[in-house]
Amino acid sequence: MNEPKQDRSRATRLRLLAAAIDTLAEQGWTATTVGLVATRAGVSRGAAQHHFPTREELITAALDHMFDRRMAEVREQAGRTGPLSTEQVVERIVDCYTGTMFKAALQVWTAAAADPELRARILPLEERFGRTAHRVVVEQLGVDDADLRVRGLVQATLDLARGLGLADVLHDDSKRRRAVVAAWAAQLEAALR
Amino acid sequence: MNEPKQDRSRATRLRLLAAAIDTLAEQGWTATTVGLVATRAGVSRGAAQHHFPTREELITAALDHMFDRRMAEVREQAGRTGPLSTEQVVERIVDCYTGTMFKAALQVWTAAAADPELRARILPLEERFGRTAHRVVVEQLGVDDADLRVRGLVQATLDLARGLGLADVLHDDSKRRRAVVAAWAAQLEAALR
Repeated sequence: MNEPKQDRSRATRLRLLAAAIDTLAEQGWTATTVGLVATRAGVSRGAAQHHFPTREELITAALDHMFDRRMAEVREQAGRTGPLSTEQVVERIVDCYTGTMFKAALQVWTAAAADPELRARILPLEERFGRTAHRVVVEQLGVDDADLRVRGLVQATLDLARGLGLADVLHDDSKRRRAVVAAWAAQLEAALR
Repeated sequence: MNEPKQDRSRATRLRLLAAAIDTLAEQGWTATTVGLVATRAGVSRGAAQHHFPTREELITAALDHMFDRRMAEVREQAGRTGPLSTEQVVERIVDCYTGTMFKAALQVWTAAAADPELRARILPLEERFGRTAHRVVVEQLGVDDADLRVRGLVQATLDLARGLGLADVLHDDSKRRRAVVAAWAAQLEAALR
């Protein structure tokens, strides 16, 4: 059976996005060219460049797509299991910041710090990611972030998650992280209820 | 008056270390070569290479030196002013993670994530920095971290500081950060006292 052309094009695009994230996380920003990502995805360089003329376009699209997918997963899990405990909410958001997507994003953020053009591309993404992650945590905790104290604690939880992500970049920090998440969640639970 | 040769050598070394941190923070890992740092420090490339044969040696020495200086400053400030409030302790440690040294370290950590040799050099630094920062916060809060709950809260404070540092890399995040620090400090104070 022939795959319709449009589906094939969409599948190629998704393979490129996934390969871009893996390449960034494992080989870093400088190594992540459209050519290398195409090879990793098993796509011709021409096809890759048809989808993404520049690596900035490829990488922005990859981060956008993976972030949305990750947030959708977190929301679906919660939908399936019903209300989560505070500790489960913290665990799940911390998981988002310790996976491959965070390691890929870190490469891009760090490159953008020394590159004003890239920074201008990345700032709107950063803002959108921050806003969305905040909303997801507020929903899952079932709290009202019109309360400034609550809002501060939700923000702090996301900053903590980001810091735990950074601590996991050079070695597996999962054992220490479990203790920190438990301590934080107990505190957050006491503060919110 | 002639500067004694040893003092001159020491001054050259310190200029190179400071220039390495600034170059890393502003221009990123790839741009930070011994040659560029020497130019920025106003030191001949030969003299720079006499002190630091490779950029890995230069950069490791720079991070080591700046970290120790920063921690010494935090300790001295506390010594001058007497016991600090919980919020002041959190503010000061967060300041350490939002300055030029953190931005320089971030470049090195991120490069090390994709470079096993560099990672092997950086891991002992990461461990030492983590241990020292933990001890400084414990001292300044005047708490006993043999208590596992206290230890978890101190660790969480350092992870939060790291996350706030990362949020400050692409834009000035100081306004949002003040609210987050205040929210967490209030929580930490309630949890510790």
